[in-house]
Amino acid sequence: MSTLGFIEYEKASPEVKAVYDDIMATRKIDKVTNFWKALAHDPVRLKRTWEDTKQIMGEGALDPLVKELIYVAVSVSNQCDYCIAAHTAAARKKGMAEAMFNEMLAVVGLANSNNRLVAGLQVEIDEQFKAIG
Amino acid sequence: MSTLGFIEYEKASPEVKAVYDDIMATRKIDKVTNFWKALAHDPVRLKRTWEDTKQIMGEGALDPLVKELIYVAVSVSNQCDYCIAAHTAAARKKGMAEAMFNEMLAVVGLANSNNRLVAGLQVEIDEQFKAIG
Amino acid sequence: MSTLGFIEYEKASPEVKAVYDDIMATRKIDKVTNFWKALAHDPVRLKRTWEDTKQIMGEGALDPLVKELIYVAVSVSNQCDYCIAAHTAAARKKGMAEAMFNEMLAVVGLANSNNRLVAGLQVEIDEQFKAIG
Amino acid sequence: MSTLGFIEYEKASPEVKAVYDDIMATRKIDKVTNFWKALAHDPVRLKRTWEDTKQIMGEGALDPLVKELIYVAVSVSNQCDYCIAAHTAAARKKGMAEAMFNEMLAVVGLANSNNRLVAGLQVEIDEQFKAIG
Amino acid sequence: MSTLGFIEYEKASPEVKAVYDDIMATRKIDKVTNFWKALAHDPVRLKRTWEDTKQIMGEGALDPLVKELIYVAVSVSNQCDYCIAAHTAAARKKGMAEAMFNEMLAVVGLANSNNRLVAGLQVEIDEQFKAIG
Amino acid sequence: MSTLGFIEYEKASPEVKAVYDDIMATRKIDKVTNFWKALAHDPVRLKRTWEDTKQIMGEGALDPLVKELIYVAVSVSNQCDYCIAAHTAAARKKGMAEAMFNEMLAVVGLANSNNRLVAGLQVEIDEQFKAIG
Repeated sequence: MSTLGFIEYEKASPEVKAVYDDIMATRKIDKVTNFWKALAHDPVRLKRTWEDTKQIMGEGALDPLVKELIYVAVSVSNQCDYCIAAHTAAARKKGMAEAMFNEMLAVVGLANSNNRLVAGLQVEIDEQFKAIG
Repeated sequence: MSTLGFIEYEKASPEVKAVYDDIMATRKIDKVTNFWKALAHDPVRLKRTWEDTKQIMGEGALDPLVKELIYVAVSVSNQCDYCIAAHTAAARKKGMAEAMFNEMLAVVGLANSNNRLVAGLQVEIDEQFKAIG
Repeated sequence: MSTLGFIEYEKASPEVKAVYDDIMATRKIDKVTNFWKALAHDPVRLKRTWEDTKQIMGEGALDPLVKELIYVAVSVSNQCDYCIAAHTAAARKKGMAEAMFNEMLAVVGLANSNNRLVAGLQVEIDEQFKAIG
Repeated sequence: MSTLGFIEYEKASPEVKAVYDDIMATRKIDKVTNFWKALAHDPVRLKRTWEDTKQIMGEGALDPLVKELIYVAVSVSNQCDYCIAAHTAAARKKGMAEAMFNEMLAVVGLANSNNRLVAGLQVEIDEQFKAIG
Repeated sequence: MSTLGFIEYEKASPEVKAVYDDIMATRKIDKVTNFWKALAHDPVRLKRTWEDTKQIMGEGALDPLVKELIYVAVSVSNQCDYCIAAHTAAARKKGMAEAMFNEMLAVVGLANSNNRLVAGLQVEIDEQFKAIG
Repeated sequence: MSTLGFIEYEKASPEVKAVYDDIMATRKIDKVTNFWKALAHDPVRLKRTWEDTKQIMGEGALDPLVKELIYVAVSVSNQCDYCIAAHTAAARKKGMAEAMFNEMLAVVGLANSNNRLVAGLQVEIDEQFKAIG
């Protein structure tokens, strides 16, 4: 059970509805997901989170599908079940094939393992990696 | 100072040298980095880690650059300084422009934030995300 | 299903009952929560955990409500569902308004994001922050 | 060495300078810290991060000092050295006494320990914590 | 619901069946657990994960029970419910008494707490710990 | 630089000296490490942390060396450099051979990887792991 419950569209204030409308129009969906309906208890947070998300996840130097894969990868690494479910679905919608999902997951596992081998062995940074790009 | 120190090429056993040689040939570099020289204290581990890494990070359904970006993203999320330095360098070598680095980082920040909003609000998974793909 | 199950008051040993009694008296509640009933399988651990908790979460330089907010913030950051549920309830009992909960959560999200921007950019500590307080 | 280096005020573009000016005015300081100078490589990110930070960390239902304590607590829990140094300094500036720092830290330690006891024992959420507030 | 569902033995390809057979023979069980059936969607990953697991968790300088305890400890620290359940069962099968489980858990809690006290206090490494072993 | 600096034995209050004396006697060392000297700014915390540590890390159902290995494993997983250095030294003093260190580290890497494979695949807990022990 969600901590504060959900704000459904019908009961939302005009400012919340405006954000919901923008989410639905941007994503071409006909209802917003639970994440947004939980955030809406604080309309300023809802608007800020949506605008950050829209700006960050949109077109840019990286393809939106690559961004979704990175988002899922971080959520898997952090073990956030909701985020994994929601963004795996979003990634599929943007064209993620099962093989892409599996390869992303393999990288997440490998990085999590190697990060700890580095820590345990207290490996020092190589000189050539210290230069500024 | 690294926990066990480094095994330099000149002092390495034949089985360690064979792995070092494969790393240098695969990556087109002329010396292996500290990570591998620390792992080499346990030759079985060195070989296993390298073979997993080579298999997972190579060509596949995802481009090797995308895999590097995911690897850096997880390492940033886990705050592993060595891994960030080494794999940011690797990603640049594979063509990562600064704008790509910045966008990847923005996604990592956003996912880490949203993962916690979801947790704090105890958001339940939407029905449509529960279906098997 | 809890790993070891719960020790109910009626079946508890005298030393476990003594801790349960102190928890109920301190918190003005009439039954202990599942956390303590799971800990009670190891009476020394139960006593140590309770005494640490009582000492740390009580009155001091910080208000007990502020301490609860910090406890919830860490539990959200770590994504411990049980801890979020139990300590959000505890914070409400100590006077946490919904706006306070939402602001705490916004700080947790922000810190989790900024922590990773810092890591990804490998930001060095400013000289003025290195002095001892 | 920071990944991308720092953008100093003198060399900043007008839009970056505008953000730097707002940071200095808001915080009553005469130079911005390394975090902002690293973020400035991507002016959109700089502006977004600053505006989110300003909005979230300002006056509200919670006192700005309490917010700083929560920010430090999360950064300690995540072990982000830069963030701990910078925000401990900020908290002191807002009036954090050493005893407050120590109590905050004790709560962070306790929550991190108890979060794991809960996980290890797989404690189920008590019925009374499942109700919506 | 698992993201990709499970590959049951009857429907598995010969290469997947070969790994399943080796798991069952090595562990003296008559069916493989969900983890392996989920991994089997990518037969290369299934084989790699199983071979790494078999090599790492087998007899060596450390007793297999000690390895299971370390595995559970890390999974508790990371709060992976599936892993805790599966490896606690595996540890019991290898002889873990309840008192051993409880002591392992106490160490996990303590280390998680002390790790953060160290971070918050920014404790510098003692000279005597810097020497190579 | 440590946040609060260190309390040296000569300048310590009698209650702090008493804890330092017990640490040195228990561990058969002639000076306490930086961790304890940083904790001593809050004598109640120093005493509580030491007594918990002494109780938890001492003889029991698990050998003290096994406990040290678990402590190092968690610290590696959390990437706490100080803790890794200090407890690797402690483990060596209790008899940890290099092969034991390497095997412990391999388990930490494996568990960190597998924890994420489980998360990404959203693997459900097998029925046989749900029973109470």
